[in-house]
Amino acid sequence: MSKIVMKFGGTSVADLDRIRHVAKIVKTEVDQGHQIAVVVSAMAGETNKLVGWTQELSAVHNASEYDVILASAEQVSVGLVAVALGAIGVSARSWLGWQIPIQTSDIHGSARILDVQTDLLNQYFEQYQVAVIAGFQGITDDNRITTLGRGGSDTSAVALAAALDAERCDIYTDVDGVYTMDPRVVPKAKRLERVSYEEMLELASLGAKVLQTRSVELAMLHRVPLRVLSAFDDDPGGTLLCDEDDIVEQNPVTGIAYSRDEAKITLLRVPDQPGVAAAIFGPLADSGVNVDMIVQNVSEDGQKTDLTFTVNRSELEIALLAIRQAEENIGYEDLVHDAKVAKVSIIGIGMRTNVGIAQTMFKTLSEKGINIQVISTSEIKVSLLIAEECVELAVRELHSVFDLDTK
Amino acid sequence: MSKIVMKFGGTSVADLDRIRHVAKIVKTEVDQGHQIAVVVSAMAGETNKLVGWTQELSAVHNASEYDVILASAEQVSVGLVAVALGAIGVSARSWLGWQIPIQTSDIHGSARILDVQTDLLNQYFEQYQVAVIAGFQGITDDNRITTLGRGGSDTSAVALAAALDAERCDIYTDVDGVYTMDPRVVPKAKRLERVSYEEMLELASLGAKVLQTRSVELAMLHRVPLRVLSAFDDDPGGTLLCDEDDIVEQNPVTGIAYSRDEAKITLLRVPDQPGVAAAIFGPLADSGVNVDMIVQNVSEDGQKTDLTFTVNRSELEIALLAIRQAEENIGYEDLVHDAKVAKVSIIGIGMRTNVGIAQTMFKTLSEKGINIQVISTSEIKVSLLIAEECVELAVRELHSVFDLDTK
Repeated sequence: MSKIVMKFGGTSVADLDRIRHVAKIVKTEVDQGHQIAVVVSAMAGETNKLVGWTQELSAVHNASEYDVILASAEQVSVGLVAVALGAIGVSARSWLGWQIPIQTSDIHGSARILDVQTDLLNQYFEQYQVAVIAGFQGITDDNRITTLGRGGSDTSAVALAAALDAERCDIYTDVDGVYTMDPRVVPKAKRLERVSYEEMLELASLGAKVLQTRSVELAMLHRVPLRVLSAFDDDPGGTLLCDEDDIVEQNPVTGIAYSRDEAKITLLRVPDQPGVAAAIFGPLADSGVNVDMIVQNVSEDGQKTDLTFTVNRSELEIALLAIRQAEENIGYEDLVHDAKVAKVSIIGIGMRTNVGIAQTMFKTLSEKGINIQVISTSEIKVSLLIAEECVELAVRELHSVFDLDTK
Repeated sequence: MSKIVMKFGGTSVADLDRIRHVAKIVKTEVDQGHQIAVVVSAMAGETNKLVGWTQELSAVHNASEYDVILASAEQVSVGLVAVALGAIGVSARSWLGWQIPIQTSDIHGSARILDVQTDLLNQYFEQYQVAVIAGFQGITDDNRITTLGRGGSDTSAVALAAALDAERCDIYTDVDGVYTMDPRVVPKAKRLERVSYEEMLELASLGAKVLQTRSVELAMLHRVPLRVLSAFDDDPGGTLLCDEDDIVEQNPVTGIAYSRDEAKITLLRVPDQPGVAAAIFGPLADSGVNVDMIVQNVSEDGQKTDLTFTVNRSELEIALLAIRQAEENIGYEDLVHDAKVAKVSIIGIGMRTNVGIAQTMFKTLSEKGINIQVISTSEIKVSLLIAEECVELAVRELHSVFDLDTK
């Protein structure tokens, strides 16, 4: 019999009515003869409440106790979903992280799954059709509860799908799939029927918040067919994440993403000599600052050059402090920064075989008078840093130019 | 180093302020050099909320999922208490039922503790001073979570005290001890410094709701010195439960209890012959009805007699139904019942050596014109069934007659 993993997020189990609805969705798959592992998050709001209590008691608290407290919320939701399934005649039992067990590292609060043991689950599936499994949680070698960090239930679901050799992993959420662009910004955005893991990774890391990046990586690694679909609409829609070979028709550009969480830092007239990059980025790394885009101008005289990079806007102050403290080592003449910038990206595996995509992007923005500050590219992505105020205009124009608008 | 078990109930950990206060109380014992096992209940109200959710989803639900859902509440409180202890410099970690483990039977919802394994805890105490342990929960042989039934955290605490060979077990609650009588009914009631296990068993089972009966049985069995004291007052007061040999000065009567949860059933003119008692009480037992007091009149003619017994008022209808269905077998002529009755009891190990105590009780009530309907006695107790409307008058008079009033 084929196994399917179905994952429901916090808004999908936010109250008893929604939990009853989840049970109904699960039953339709049971009625088709599948064995189902249902992975459930905490009821929306519960985790935040528990985090709030913990922080109010102690700003600096033991991370292992934080995990004990947080993991209780999934314990409630798996129990309730199992009861709701029982109420409509589907025999189901709950499984907590330690009962399976889902072995993780001991980095409390953001543990990584090391191993999902399937002996007990597979034994269980010999007799029963539905296992309701707590997402987001696992257990260390010495029997302490861990949590996987925000969005970790997606990762739990994919890891279980891989371990159980499931036919597919369905992620039910509050949107009906992955779109060419956020429909709240571009109303003409359309849902993608299929998207490759690689593209989704870029979309996820560039700000499309449908799936946790780690869960996409894991799905790609184990080639788990992953569907994103709606737990709210009668028509669940759906986008299938799959191998690029399984995608037949392909626009050069699959989707557009943007991020406002950007800040730009420019060091003016730094010495153009070996070792200067290390002098700049070493202190940033030591301060825990993630550097994203980097551009260095060609120096005119071979002596001095300007160097620009971007960081997450929330890390701007830390980054500036780190640079100033290393001023003597670096030897820049001036330090300027701009927090009113945003990153716009086009993503598509079709770019590999279509030349001129980047050029079309530059030209489109230029025609609208939008200045490009930094450029960064990969095989399947072009990202541009522009003024924040131009974001909406830029994404709408690009969406239209790359033929993504609904007809 | 000596070990102490400290148990805090739901009102004692009802919010973050109360949890901070609990941490302070624990710290005072830590500062005296003790190793502490803190047993914690769910935050007041949480268990009821979870029970409500479960029942709303399904009136007839799987008891093992009910336990999964309920046990989450103690998971939150142990984590928070551990964090609160950390915040004032006391190193502590939480322990869940399955981590210790506390082995129980598999009667979900009202499991019995079978074994408390102490290897891991004792290893832990080699390095740390405080273990914060989830009350009310345990684990079955096949790794399912169980709960012990309402008030089960008292039992958890006593079982841990016995297993850890603790010097004593302190039950912190919202009253400052065990009283000669409920002070809300008899304002002159006084707190007992000491009470024997046997007396407390009678008091607990007769309606004094300070401790769960099972916890007192367990304490008696393992001779665990048990203190009841207040988590709310600066002066915690306290009543020590101990062996009767450890009680020096002793009134004949230690305390008075009453219960309004009574109903009386009388079968008129049943055959006075062997087997009739079995014909009556067999069907009641089969229906799950607990029979308390029983009195059978001497038959005048050796042919027919009247038989009266009491049941819990909530079970009256079930009891009547069971009797009516067995009417043919029993052969009674009429069936009457009265739900407006109450039980008043005097309790005291001193009764063993003092004659005339029961007689004083009868006389006191008779002088006030209170009719005694049923009498039941044990070595250390006399219980009388009277009209419910007379309860307050009866307990006040008895409290005074037996010299229990505060001076």
